[in-house]
Amino acid sequence: MNNIVSRVAGDAVPSKARFRPLSIDKLRIDGFFGPRLDTICATTAFTLFERCINAGMLDQVDPDRPNPGVVMPPEPSNTVTTQMFWDSDFGKSIETAAYALNRERNEKLEAMVDEVVEAYGRLQQEDGYLNSWYIRIEPGKRWTNLRDKHELYNAGHLIEGAVAYYHATGKRRFLDIMCRFADHIGQVFGPGEGQLKGYPGHPELELALVRLARATGEQRYLDLARFFVDQRGQQPSYFDEEARARGEEPGDFHFGTLEYCQAHKPVREQDAVVGHAVRAAYLYAGMADVATEFADDSLTGALNRLWSHLVDRNLYITGGFGPSARNEGLTFDYDLPNESAYAETCASVALVFWASRMLGRGPNGEYADIMEQALYNNSLAGLSLDGTQFFYDNPLESRGDHHRWTWHRCPCCPPNISRLIASVGTYFYGVSADEIAVHLYNSGTAEIGLESGIVNLTQTTGYPFDGDVEIGVDAAEVQSFTLSLRVPGWAADYELSVNGAPVSLQTENGYLRLSREWQPGDRVSLKLDLTPRRIFANPKVTPDQGRVALMRGPLVYCMEEVDNGGDLNSIILPDDARIDAERSDILGGITRLTALACRESWAGNALYAETAPARQKARITAIPYYAWDHREAGAMLTWIRREQET
Amino acid sequence: MNNIVSRVAGDAVPSKARFRPLSIDKLRIDGFFGPRLDTICATTAFTLFERCINAGMLDQVDPDRPNPGVVMPPEPSNTVTTQMFWDSDFGKSIETAAYALNRERNEKLEAMVDEVVEAYGRLQQEDGYLNSWYIRIEPGKRWTNLRDKHELYNAGHLIEGAVAYYHATGKRRFLDIMCRFADHIGQVFGPGEGQLKGYPGHPELELALVRLARATGEQRYLDLARFFVDQRGQQPSYFDEEARARGEEPGDFHFGTLEYCQAHKPVREQDAVVGHAVRAAYLYAGMADVATEFADDSLTGALNRLWSHLVDRNLYITGGFGPSARNEGLTFDYDLPNESAYAETCASVALVFWASRMLGRGPNGEYADIMEQALYNNSLAGLSLDGTQFFYDNPLESRGDHHRWTWHRCPCCPPNISRLIASVGTYFYGVSADEIAVHLYNSGTAEIGLESGIVNLTQTTGYPFDGDVEIGVDAAEVQSFTLSLRVPGWAADYELSVNGAPVSLQTENGYLRLSREWQPGDRVSLKLDLTPRRIFANPKVTPDQGRVALMRGPLVYCMEEVDNGGDLNSIILPDDARIDAERSDILGGITRLTALACRESWAGNALYAETAPARQKARITAIPYYAWDHREAGAMLTWIRREQET
Repeated sequence: MNNIVSRVAGDAVPSKARFRPLSIDKLRIDGFFGPRLDTICATTAFTLFERCINAGMLDQVDPDRPNPGVVMPPEPSNTVTTQMFWDSDFGKSIETAAYALNRERNEKLEAMVDEVVEAYGRLQQEDGYLNSWYIRIEPGKRWTNLRDKHELYNAGHLIEGAVAYYHATGKRRFLDIMCRFADHIGQVFGPGEGQLKGYPGHPELELALVRLARATGEQRYLDLARFFVDQRGQQPSYFDEEARARGEEPGDFHFGTLEYCQAHKPVREQDAVVGHAVRAAYLYAGMADVATEFADDSLTGALNRLWSHLVDRNLYITGGFGPSARNEGLTFDYDLPNESAYAETCASVALVFWASRMLGRGPNGEYADIMEQALYNNSLAGLSLDGTQFFYDNPLESRGDHHRWTWHRCPCCPPNISRLIASVGTYFYGVSADEIAVHLYNSGTAEIGLESGIVNLTQTTGYPFDGDVEIGVDAAEVQSFTLSLRVPGWAADYELSVNGAPVSLQTENGYLRLSREWQPGDRVSLKLDLTPRRIFANPKVTPDQGRVALMRGPLVYCMEEVDNGGDLNSIILPDDARIDAERSDILGGITRLTALACRESWAGNALYAETAPARQKARITAIPYYAWDHREAGAMLTWIRREQET
Repeated sequence: MNNIVSRVAGDAVPSKARFRPLSIDKLRIDGFFGPRLDTICATTAFTLFERCINAGMLDQVDPDRPNPGVVMPPEPSNTVTTQMFWDSDFGKSIETAAYALNRERNEKLEAMVDEVVEAYGRLQQEDGYLNSWYIRIEPGKRWTNLRDKHELYNAGHLIEGAVAYYHATGKRRFLDIMCRFADHIGQVFGPGEGQLKGYPGHPELELALVRLARATGEQRYLDLARFFVDQRGQQPSYFDEEARARGEEPGDFHFGTLEYCQAHKPVREQDAVVGHAVRAAYLYAGMADVATEFADDSLTGALNRLWSHLVDRNLYITGGFGPSARNEGLTFDYDLPNESAYAETCASVALVFWASRMLGRGPNGEYADIMEQALYNNSLAGLSLDGTQFFYDNPLESRGDHHRWTWHRCPCCPPNISRLIASVGTYFYGVSADEIAVHLYNSGTAEIGLESGIVNLTQTTGYPFDGDVEIGVDAAEVQSFTLSLRVPGWAADYELSVNGAPVSLQTENGYLRLSREWQPGDRVSLKLDLTPRRIFANPKVTPDQGRVALMRGPLVYCMEEVDNGGDLNSIILPDDARIDAERSDILGGITRLTALACRESWAGNALYAETAPARQKARITAIPYYAWDHREAGAMLTWIRREQET
């Protein structure tokens, strides 16, 4: 056993300074997420595979099949092929399937995964190299364009898939294949003489290598992750030199700036979230992992600056970011348009990754609050309730013409949101040697290994619609450890009790830290105040001025035309109107918000008039943002017009 | 003398059914527009020529100079050259210079024009053909790509320049050159056997030919204008066939749709303003001219539908249209974003052209109101007060990063807004055989030829800042005719008197029609109510909801940061706040609007908060939209947040 984790999944013994997630096999999820996971097991996991295979991906991966060549996407005028990152689509689909199989073994699904895994096994080169684009479509060009061609990115997603499949099924085949490739990468790239000094154009491999290290206990994968992080943005620019070696001008590429891929300066000098949003958050997640594993405070400093820049200036209330479709990313501070918001599903998923890894140095509500906000709103909206349709971009306002896709020319989001939801339990807890931090609340069980022994936690709650959380703490024997319960920043009030006795305790960094000798059968109860809240935006966010958003618990609410009629911008919600919460069976069971607002009416068809619109009282209904676009197509609005009085 | 006009400029004897504009030499402009015209005479007319010549245009036109070849625009990554429509830039610059020379003869300026005219004279081919791009850069390819290459468009602008120069100076040289070219076009294009059935890809020649007909009295130019209008959009598509003849797919071009250039169906079947905004309004202006000259009600019907579609669904309050930079044009109904508004200066100028020509069948406030709105707001903003800088796009809201250009890669707007302002007097009056319609009010004189004789009108007014208009009607002898005075749709109240005696008269189509025997020395007085007005937008225009715009007379007002501080969207104007008007000497002399509003303040730097912003009373100041961006750079806002009460 080395100083990282054991080789046996879930049998981790983390150190005190490092909070790591549980592996999927130690978790059982019921409650709010239970039905979503059942849907992924029954539908989405298959859907992803079928759509990948229909797109031709297996033809490219399997060397026993005819080479597909370059497959053009369906849109006639579209000249971009995303084929060079098909491996990543398979990686994320395998990862999703793995979590589904962990929940519910299914021979057919497992056979589908194994077929792809075996194809990758046959495709893998003698030296361990593995990339279906460069082996079959552009042979001889490997490692010539790290900046644009997603070669290391693909490796990362395949590694994540392999780790998940190993944890879920215990099968080592795919893990072994990917370890061989990771070892090959570790030979090609590194600080030594003759090794390339490059790093991923699209970050992802960094965090994947940390996962691989945690699953295998191999320090060398951590070292390689750190190498990529440290090397990024160093001068002279690897990407520029690589471009010149190809005979290209360095600036002559997609968006022409290294900010696009966060390689404009060394990561420790970065202080603004820039460029492509998904790349950014994947990089920061990898940095946070490296900071955790190496206790690297110089990375933590940069991460804190980047975090503030995102959260204080560039984050949608839904937990999405990256407003612009042009670069799929950032523009300028406070640029948060609602109707044209790009807010890619993958970016919000990546923010969940980043935030969860910011918790690696210890529980901190600042990160957990944002993780929860991104998870329950922008991310969760990405997958339809029936598990078959996917949002790519996530506007906060729609005229009724924005709907989930069956698939996408660039199908990055479908398997990404699917793997996140399928593995959602792994974001609930952070575990160190002697502390369990409960970041998120949802019914289910977890088997947690501490230095002191195994602890079985059982959460029982109707969260996020109900604020009462009961936690059974079943240590096999009397154990001393800390159980830290997050009190969300949004909770105006809370009550804590242990075995029925109220406990008065101040939060530390947003967590109630219960340090005691735990007895088998102990019960902790936390009651969180779920009073609906009005949220106002900084005046620098001009589209939100004169507007209010509604939240209850972690959920952002929106109005849909089907509940409220059209012209949602005719509706004004007075600041003093009471917001009522009521349970409803629609949309899989939700709590709706209603209020007595007023609606302006417009006489005639003129474009402009000198008479202010007349007003009538109108009851409005808002639903959770994640559940929108499931009924009759129509307009949607998150930021509602407000007035002090109407 | 034929049935159109005399050959002598300004000596027109129009028929009763046709209202035509005065030629420039019959007008003297003082008042509000006087200083603007002086600035054009002293500065802009020269600036345009110098910038055209600096761009290399004379090198392309003058066959005695070395051929410049294809000159790439300054932006490094920009691959569009606007060089193929350099003739139009010269045409509009000559037209501007002509109006300046009409106001104030200047030898240096006249010599500059003559130099260009002579170059065109030398360039003109034996058969009359004249286009500097096709003669010098792409010889042998003339008339092979009417759709994209602006060949007939260029002809139109040169013709307009020639007509203006002839009226202003009496010199026939340029007019003769352009008549030769127009005659050549009339041989190449037409209904006869062997003639091409094409029409301009970018409309403009249609209205230019009507101007040429009115200046020369030649019916054949009217017939050719009608041919182009009638032919447009007929099946099979000329543009598609022409593309195939070039070996191209018909749809394989800029924007790929014939809607872009309004050639998707015959003009009489069109009922929606689509595509490139400038092309659209130029076409409709030409259609209206043809409808006037041929009394063609089938065109009028189509024009009325197009007009409604624009005015009722797609017009900015500033009189701009075409919200999208992508196609420089229309998108979908009610799509009127403020900050990203394209609202090209040329489009608003073209709308003035179109509206003025909709008055060809008789005075009608519906058209004159919009003409005035487009002129005084979006258009007028296009030229800086010092006559040297130009807006291309005209947003209604800015963060402070939008400023007038010195020049532009595509310099269509600078000479377009300049020629409009320099000839603004020609939009003041519509004249038929026995009626003078006064569409716009501005101090100055006009010499008007009616069937009954010459009438000299003298307007004295501080309009648009003052609503009192005195009109001296000085007929050389007693004459019977109708003097029609427009009562703007925005005037809540007005008073009319003749020779000091109040006259009670109902408006007809927005005009007070005074039919009487006019005596030398008659004086008419019209007092228009200029109380500031609040304007509200149809709820389908979502960005304007919860907002109000301020107008006074024809002027739209906006707030600038220099007067009001930043974060203009923190300001709320209560519906019941009094709006005060006060004269100011700034910005060339304006009337400012002020009101007691309130301003929200935000504590701290958080992006979101649960506390509604606090409010303080704040006096706001608004200036005319046309005058913005002349002082310290900063934010600007037209649609101001409102509340019923604050």
